[in-house]
Amino acid sequence: MLSFESDYTEGAHEAILRRLAETNLEQWPGYGGDFYSERAAEKIRQACGCPQAQVFFLVGGTQANLVVIDALLQSYEGVVAAKTGHVSVHEAGAIEYTGHKVLELAQKEGKICGEDLQKFLESFWQDESHEHMVFPGMVYISHPTEYGTLYTKEELVRLSEICRRFHIPLYLDGARLGYGLAGQGTDVTLPLIAQACDVFYIGGTKVGALCGEAVVFTKNNKPRHFLTTVKQHGALLAKGRLLGLQFDTLFTGGLYFEVSRHAIAMAQRLKEGFRKRGYTFYLESPTNQQFVVLENQEMERLKKKVRFGFWEKLDESHTVVRFATSWATKPEDVDTLMGLLDS
Amino acid sequence: MLSFESDYTEGAHEAILRRLAETNLEQWPGYGGDFYSERAAEKIRQACGCPQAQVFFLVGGTQANLVVIDALLQSYEGVVAAKTGHVSVHEAGAIEYTGHKVLELAQKEGKICGEDLQKFLESFWQDESHEHMVFPGMVYISHPTEYGTLYTKEELVRLSEICRRFHIPLYLDGARLGYGLAGQGTDVTLPLIAQACDVFYIGGTKVGALCGEAVVFTKNNKPRHFLTTVKQHGALLAKGRLLGLQFDTLFTGGLYFEVSRHAIAMAQRLKEGFRKRGYTFYLESPTNQQFVVLENQEMERLKKKVRFGFWEKLDESHTVVRFATSWATKPEDVDTLMGLLDS
Amino acid sequence: MLSFESDYTEGAHEAILRRLAETNLEQWPGYGGDFYSERAAEKIRQACGCPQAQVFFLVGGTQANLVVIDALLQSYEGVVAAKTGHVSVHEAGAIEYTGHKVLELAQKEGKICGEDLQKFLESFWQDESHEHMVFPGMVYISHPTEYGTLYTKEELVRLSEICRRFHIPLYLDGARLGYGLAGQGTDVTLPLIAQACDVFYIGGTKVGALCGEAVVFTKNNKPRHFLTTVKQHGALLAKGRLLGLQFDTLFTGGLYFEVSRHAIAMAQRLKEGFRKRGYTFYLESPTNQQFVVLENQEMERLKKKVRFGFWEKLDESHTVVRFATSWATKPEDVDTLMGLLDS
Amino acid sequence: MLSFESDYTEGAHEAILRRLAETNLEQWPGYGGDFYSERAAEKIRQACGCPQAQVFFLVGGTQANLVVIDALLQSYEGVVAAKTGHVSVHEAGAIEYTGHKVLELAQKEGKICGEDLQKFLESFWQDESHEHMVFPGMVYISHPTEYGTLYTKEELVRLSEICRRFHIPLYLDGARLGYGLAGQGTDVTLPLIAQACDVFYIGGTKVGALCGEAVVFTKNNKPRHFLTTVKQHGALLAKGRLLGLQFDTLFTGGLYFEVSRHAIAMAQRLKEGFRKRGYTFYLESPTNQQFVVLENQEMERLKKKVRFGFWEKLDESHTVVRFATSWATKPEDVDTLMGLLDS
Repeated sequence: MLSFESDYTEGAHEAILRRLAETNLEQWPGYGGDFYSERAAEKIRQACGCPQAQVFFLVGGTQANLVVIDALLQSYEGVVAAKTGHVSVHEAGAIEYTGHKVLELAQKEGKICGEDLQKFLESFWQDESHEHMVFPGMVYISHPTEYGTLYTKEELVRLSEICRRFHIPLYLDGARLGYGLAGQGTDVTLPLIAQACDVFYIGGTKVGALCGEAVVFTKNNKPRHFLTTVKQHGALLAKGRLLGLQFDTLFTGGLYFEVSRHAIAMAQRLKEGFRKRGYTFYLESPTNQQFVVLENQEMERLKKKVRFGFWEKLDESHTVVRFATSWATKPEDVDTLMGLLDS
Repeated sequence: MLSFESDYTEGAHEAILRRLAETNLEQWPGYGGDFYSERAAEKIRQACGCPQAQVFFLVGGTQANLVVIDALLQSYEGVVAAKTGHVSVHEAGAIEYTGHKVLELAQKEGKICGEDLQKFLESFWQDESHEHMVFPGMVYISHPTEYGTLYTKEELVRLSEICRRFHIPLYLDGARLGYGLAGQGTDVTLPLIAQACDVFYIGGTKVGALCGEAVVFTKNNKPRHFLTTVKQHGALLAKGRLLGLQFDTLFTGGLYFEVSRHAIAMAQRLKEGFRKRGYTFYLESPTNQQFVVLENQEMERLKKKVRFGFWEKLDESHTVVRFATSWATKPEDVDTLMGLLDS
Repeated sequence: MLSFESDYTEGAHEAILRRLAETNLEQWPGYGGDFYSERAAEKIRQACGCPQAQVFFLVGGTQANLVVIDALLQSYEGVVAAKTGHVSVHEAGAIEYTGHKVLELAQKEGKICGEDLQKFLESFWQDESHEHMVFPGMVYISHPTEYGTLYTKEELVRLSEICRRFHIPLYLDGARLGYGLAGQGTDVTLPLIAQACDVFYIGGTKVGALCGEAVVFTKNNKPRHFLTTVKQHGALLAKGRLLGLQFDTLFTGGLYFEVSRHAIAMAQRLKEGFRKRGYTFYLESPTNQQFVVLENQEMERLKKKVRFGFWEKLDESHTVVRFATSWATKPEDVDTLMGLLDS
Repeated sequence: MLSFESDYTEGAHEAILRRLAETNLEQWPGYGGDFYSERAAEKIRQACGCPQAQVFFLVGGTQANLVVIDALLQSYEGVVAAKTGHVSVHEAGAIEYTGHKVLELAQKEGKICGEDLQKFLESFWQDESHEHMVFPGMVYISHPTEYGTLYTKEELVRLSEICRRFHIPLYLDGARLGYGLAGQGTDVTLPLIAQACDVFYIGGTKVGALCGEAVVFTKNNKPRHFLTTVKQHGALLAKGRLLGLQFDTLFTGGLYFEVSRHAIAMAQRLKEGFRKRGYTFYLESPTNQQFVVLENQEMERLKKKVRFGFWEKLDESHTVVRFATSWATKPEDVDTLMGLLDS
């Protein structure tokens, strides 16, 4: 059945599978000490324009979030995040499990704004009883957000400046970073992110890899004995080569950006198709996730022929659903979907 | 350079890479809800002779240990393990990080014995102040152990009976389970393990897979909402198909057992080679890890031409080193090693 | 200096000090195994009209909250609470430190309502991705709330019914319970609370004791090996007699209720004094905490002569401040305060 | 019934009760911000000959251990302690609950020795796989130990030097510190402890107080925002005055030392009495805990008339039992005990 359910329904980009086969019987030390992990790190440093960056490969997004946040926070600190942030809602309490509160900020289309952040931080420090409260120890944003939206360069720099003023790191969850960097009309680049953020991760799982996220510490700020912390959280992959090789492949010849642009082109094709047919969108997303408003009966009819994600009820007779494209989406699949709308 | 450093220096068995390529563009739901994960679980149930077994795929061994142990223990309980157990020494405190003490028992060649276990459990319950102590809530054993040794059927059944008498689960860490089942002279089978243990895992990472361990709950005892607990620990792989497909491949046509037997054959070839040349062994290992005593100068000489693991100093002039074979070891590599000894 | 800063500025009711002196050299076993702890428990069972209640004495409120919540929740569960609940804001992340998320609900004057709670719980279970979210495992309310307000019998019963329907316990934080039970116009009694709640605590620290809170499990639901869990959290007092004797004294001859009524009488005297002088209140509190709106200059002037609590800025020129009475407040102190207003 | 069961069977020294009554209605801010806490801290600084010491009052010993250890360790570190240390055995896994392993060292009569410690630390850092292990982040000793024994000045200084060489703090659990400082023949003083240790606590609960332990950071090394960490662990007492006043009283006119000397005199009287009657001791204890070997029938006979602690079985027909004296032991009670032996 046709599926736009998510951006992780297929395996990996064929170049990755090819490289896995080619290097399969090479013998390498484990735990990230292999040649490919080192070379991938170097390529990422170059792509970030950040020669001092320290790169570490982890298997998945929730894992990256919990390990990074726990490693950077003091015991008495929490992480500030949008109420709709992945760490706030959809990680089964992984952050709290490490002992830290997620301090929720209001959001708009998945984004937090500088004004709210500044006000929150100022209030905390002015509060006479703040010693009895959780200290805001870092800020988490996702880019693209859970709603497929993007921060502008100006917004990102603003958040970064506020974090620096309050001496707390800014952390960007880039589970879908490729699709953000290729997003329509964005002025945010990888080097800008490396500059604005203290740490971020480049998502592989949703952007062409079988698994893997590249955590980048940009200010020479990798926590001491980070490998041990990773191990302690059960997040150290024995055959680190599997992660290294995938990122080495994705960052060779700009493949990561190329597959991301493809997904965005597919999302645009899909968006235009819906729009031409008079459908409305829950919000304007410049990335690979499109939130379409469907009349309920239409939704039920479509469900039988194509997979998509339920998002939320809009009103009694309408529902917001999500169509996600990816590196693997074929133009003809989009066209088939459009045909289904017309039939 | 020739390497017998560990059993995870190569990628994966070629059948796995082939299947990954063949199924790559199939679209499957994430988080283990795919066809291959379900089929692999079924094949494992059959191989275990345990139709009610509940199978769950995780990425790595430390991860499997911490998730299973944390999910099975009450807050006030700890896990009993050999002083040399992987959870006691080489997991960077992952178990303690989940809040549980590892209650260390004396060991012999990596194994604990029924007598010690029973004495420990009886003492605990007889101690007048046991309410101020950590309750023994489960027992952890590794098979093969960290020393490559194996429990006998009788020993395993004995441990199992004691656990049942004290109403605590017996958990077996099978990171190298294949090599144990194929071990020389063993009378332990997979169905026996499924019967004797309440939960165990079948190691993939070290036995032909890129990554992955299959956790098997044998007594209809999978903890409630286990998927959520796995997610909370950052251990839920988005593309669960990667794990499912690998185990589906390994448990098709007995491949898991075949590659394990190969590793054991290579270990025997190696052992005989060393023995014939007058070398002694630190202990008698029937599995793929061989602990050889080397004179220090000999060790330094060899080090330049072959990779192996340092184990421990035996005395001033001798060192115990580890040679590991695996599914990927070639007979000619063993012969080359023997040549090096002779040269 | 005159102080209405809080209800824990003095030591203990003199009857408690007297009893401490009288029993000082008696020898008793530790950890709550003493005669007074047992007798106090029995008196509390009677006062609650709940013969099966299991009573446990802890030292402080945050400690009681974290121990009870952690002991009752499964690892994958969180506690639902008002956004303004003490556990949400003023316990330095103690709940998160135990690994559990505080799931925040909207509040009105510190209270949550049945409708919101039901909607929240229903949404959770209807959400297709709820397995990736924190399960609501119990409900926390404070009575009186942090705003001095009280639930009505009807509201409490409603919350209780909803919790039962969803099979999760209702927990009431009674740090100031005495002042709630003596509150003006309340229809909530101790037996009602024992009936409606699965667990609650009767605050001692703020109601006449040096320290101590009596945790009451009402449904024969004390978690297994609770003493060990208490010890594990560093919350088991060696000389449990100190807690037992205090509650034994407070629950002899209705002293707990008597000192509570006194505090409420003092609060009314204070409230009427302010009202007569034309001051307004931030909200209508029937208990010992009164939230008065002061013009900023007036506030600054008063600050020099009397201690009170800052609550929040109302607008540019007005501030909400808190005056707390207690078991120890003297009528003449209230009168002196009124004199200060007039001077 | 006569009791030598423990050193916390009575309430508090009468001077403490008197001071509590005298200051009862004074109004003081909470959480340690009161006059008495500050004055007690100052007196302790003087008694320690350590003007820069930072003093913090906590309620109990397990609480002090878990808060201090958790606050000083990094996430990937554990605490080195004797196998028989209180943190290793009798705190219900409180240290592990905070996420840290207790790294157990061999002991002799409850003590660890410099040689073993140095060897352990050197081995760790030399181990090639130490990044996969728990880092030794601090050293815990108890003085007196759980066996009533004492470190000598030389031993303590040796441990201190080793810790400094490895850049990890030395922490001394002084639950019974008074009885150690008054121990027979000891050359260890409070100023020496303040010099040798980076942090320690002065036990109140067992040395004349109702509750309370004074944590002393000696090297200007109180962890940042320690009050918040204490609150987060549920260990911040609202009426801090209760702790402050007790230590203020104990450190006025040398009362702490006086009551300790009394307990030691009582222990000597008891020891001599036993010895004169031909009893043997499990070990030579210079402090208030005496471990006597009783023939089993004798033990059963005595049990009916006097309370004492069971320690361990020595052989089939003999048992080691513990008699503890304290600040509250009366000479005539010791004489009565002797009479029982003779009858």
